Amino acid sequence: MEFELLRTLCSIPATAGDEGKMSEFILRYLAKNNKDFKSVPKVFSGAGFQDMVIAVFGEPRTAIFAHTDTVGYCVAYQHELIKVGNPKAPAGTKLVGEDSSGPVECKLVVEKANKTPKNPNPQEQYKYKASRTIEPGTPLTYAPDWKETANFVKSAYLDNRLGVWNALQQAHKMEHGAIVFSTYEETGGGGAQFAGRFLQENFGVQQALISDVTLLSDSIRHKKGVAISMRDRGIPRQSFVRSIISIAKEHEIAHQLEVEKAGGSDGSALQDSSYVWDWCFIGPPEDNYHQPGEKVAKVDIQAMVDLYAVLMEKL
Amino acid sequence: MEFELLRTLCSIPATAGDEGKMSEFILRYLAKNNKDFKSVPKVFSGAGFQDMVIAVFGEPRTAIFAHTDTVGYCVAYQHELIKVGNPKAPAGTKLVGEDSSGPVECKLVVEKANKTPKNPNPQEQYKYKASRTIEPGTPLTYAPDWKETANFVKSAYLDNRLGVWNALQQAHKMEHGAIVFSTYEETGGGGAQFAGRFLQENFGVQQALISDVTLLSDSIRHKKGVAISMRDRGIPRQSFVRSIISIAKEHEIAHQLEVEKAGGSDGSALQDSSYVWDWCFIGPPEDNYHQPGEKVAKVDIQAMVDLYAVLMEKL
Amino acid sequence: MEFELLRTLCSIPATAGDEGKMSEFILRYLAKNNKDFKSVPKVFSGAGFQDMVIAVFGEPRTAIFAHTDTVGYCVAYQHELIKVGNPKAPAGTKLVGEDSSGPVECKLVVEKANKTPKNPNPQEQYKYKASRTIEPGTPLTYAPDWKETANFVKSAYLDNRLGVWNALQQAHKMEHGAIVFSTYEETGGGGAQFAGRFLQENFGVQQALISDVTLLSDSIRHKKGVAISMRDRGIPRQSFVRSIISIAKEHEIAHQLEVEKAGGSDGSALQDSSYVWDWCFIGPPEDNYHQPGEKVAKVDIQAMVDLYAVLMEKL
Repeated sequence: MEFELLRTLCSIPATAGDEGKMSEFILRYLAKNNKDFKSVPKVFSGAGFQDMVIAVFGEPRTAIFAHTDTVGYCVAYQHELIKVGNPKAPAGTKLVGEDSSGPVECKLVVEKANKTPKNPNPQEQYKYKASRTIEPGTPLTYAPDWKETANFVKSAYLDNRLGVWNALQQAHKMEHGAIVFSTYEETGGGGAQFAGRFLQENFGVQQALISDVTLLSDSIRHKKGVAISMRDRGIPRQSFVRSIISIAKEHEIAHQLEVEKAGGSDGSALQDSSYVWDWCFIGPPEDNYHQPGEKVAKVDIQAMVDLYAVLMEKL
Repeated sequence: MEFELLRTLCSIPATAGDEGKMSEFILRYLAKNNKDFKSVPKVFSGAGFQDMVIAVFGEPRTAIFAHTDTVGYCVAYQHELIKVGNPKAPAGTKLVGEDSSGPVECKLVVEKANKTPKNPNPQEQYKYKASRTIEPGTPLTYAPDWKETANFVKSAYLDNRLGVWNALQQAHKMEHGAIVFSTYEETGGGGAQFAGRFLQENFGVQQALISDVTLLSDSIRHKKGVAISMRDRGIPRQSFVRSIISIAKEHEIAHQLEVEKAGGSDGSALQDSSYVWDWCFIGPPEDNYHQPGEKVAKVDIQAMVDLYAVLMEKL
Repeated sequence: MEFELLRTLCSIPATAGDEGKMSEFILRYLAKNNKDFKSVPKVFSGAGFQDMVIAVFGEPRTAIFAHTDTVGYCVAYQHELIKVGNPKAPAGTKLVGEDSSGPVECKLVVEKANKTPKNPNPQEQYKYKASRTIEPGTPLTYAPDWKETANFVKSAYLDNRLGVWNALQQAHKMEHGAIVFSTYEETGGGGAQFAGRFLQENFGVQQALISDVTLLSDSIRHKKGVAISMRDRGIPRQSFVRSIISIAKEHEIAHQLEVEKAGGSDGSALQDSSYVWDWCFIGPPEDNYHQPGEKVAKVDIQAMVDLYAVLMEKL
């Protein structure tokens, strides 16, 4: 596998609410590459779609949802930073952004008051340290930090540029299906609900695969295959999940079953809507979740690509 | 009143996400009994409806929502159990399920770390103890434990098989109305929102009665009648609730008014949607909430059946 | 500016779920004044709209959302009060309401158990003290307490009668646009989602300005202009917010930029729906949030009125 495209995707800043640059990149990618596609998709974007891109191939039964937004920070006053989603970076992390004075770099400062009897669980405060003041409202993201070894890729924002990358791989060979490049997944509330309604009302699609990255755990490990999530905070209809597991077994694609109590995805957004969706989260595990240097095993990525290709045909 | 049907309903396993068996049972019941119905309903189910069943009688103005799913546990790894919804069973409770090796029984184990200064509120961990390992993803439910005395019925899963049972009683005599046998109520996110949209768009229904079971409290007691909930976490439009209270008074049906700050139901799911609903939760109180042996007074059940019959005519 | 209308609006009781009186007042206001309007709106209300009022002027591109409900208390049993939304009044606050025995006044009682090692954070309990028992389900609101000085207005329920008042000011001069007088903002779940769907499906409107009141903070102060919120708990699409800031600058309207991590509004309700909205919260800051005597500077109100007028033309 060739990861140059993934490296590029990881370097594009696009916190939730500011996904415009990802939208542009994806539109350019589709326009430039669709001559090589098995089936040329109808592409929906622009006015009425905000920064989402929806590509529809042939007569779709199943849609891939890949969110384009990332966690990060938003500049407030007095050097304060407000989290966008739930970033987990340690103090000293290098952040980059741009305001009306141009590009800017800074370091993340994490402050935590001492525990006292009155305040036994003081909350962390986030600030930036920079050579100049940054305008309130400016989004900041982790500086690009791509590394590739024989067995792993490692980069800020594999969550979820890897899911986007997988969706773009599928685009090349898809005959029937849809891809949603969604927004606002990290903060809740947004793109997937709208895209779900759009696909159901216009194309009758009711099945969704959530192309995203999950966490390492005691049960889910590197190099054990792509994780098929049976549940997290949300519980997809189990008969649908079991049919996916059957297909993975039948095609001998390396996979591991995840059973979690917490965590959410575009799947929960679809399920909580007024539309019925059969959905399943399918993605490889990573460590360094929501930090710089998220790390995923290449064999797990290969299994992800293989499983999506089979599922888009068989489901 | 005759409770054989209720006993059967309580014995059908159907945790949230796995409501297929309840769906099948209800469809068979409707098909077998509709020759005795006052009005034969249109029944919607199957593809596009997941495991919901929606029955529409005549020209409906009001819909009864009865959720078919229950709380329970989902098997994870290392004998761990993950809660489905919010079960409250004590350690030692007998659980039943089925995986690819066939039916299986086990006991619930509840572990809680000791309180320490660093961890003053340790969370409970749930495990199972069985004669064999159970496959991850397998749903487990309380073993059937039906008991009936002169004045009470007592069984796991009266929440909400009693609400389903009440809806089926109403089906026999309903001229105009709709019944939604909904899914996913115990975990949030799901059936009711979809069913609400379906009913509004296709039949213009905007009134809902939530056929469910509530909790005993200092103010809501056994044998005091069916509870009409003025509010819980959600606040239904009070003018609608007051009209229901007036009808109950006028027809001298035993009832008690509930005013609570917490708790939710399919009513909240309807209210949080993009569709306008007048809704009211109406059901008898139980003790042993979400445990085996939920217990409800027969006179309160009778009041529930009577009030729904009047409301489906008058609203 | 003349504030008699605002004073009247502040005196109308309408907790979430009981907005009928506000609905009636607004309908009468529109009917009585529309002869002076630049453009006579189509007004939607009544059956199918609950207690919302939606006014559509010309060919709308942008909608103003102003919620009509307030926080307050709901009477339960044993003199207990349950909060409607999140009121912050101190003990002794005078509350008013009406039940079937007629109007009633009472005092708010706030009880808090002593801190103990087992219960380090006891929750506050709310009760009322009155000369008679009040019926369960009765809504109680702060007694009217209007004060006006040279530079400030001060009253219970400026949140959000000031937002409603601003919307009514705009109604006089609006050529193209929509106004939603929404319900249930203080408790979540309700009016705005429905109204958003109604406006998108019938009029293609996808832009929303949230006419509401925000909180004083270290960064947002009295007399510094209307606050344009770049984000709170929800993150609106930043490109839309930036275009609003540009227009405010270009027209030299006094404004301050708010960047917050918490708080929500009808904007979040729109964003969490299955419809795409560009939205922005724009309103002056107040102190005494959710207490009697909410206080707002007149110059900030003037800036609010001016900015909305420009935005309804330019967006």
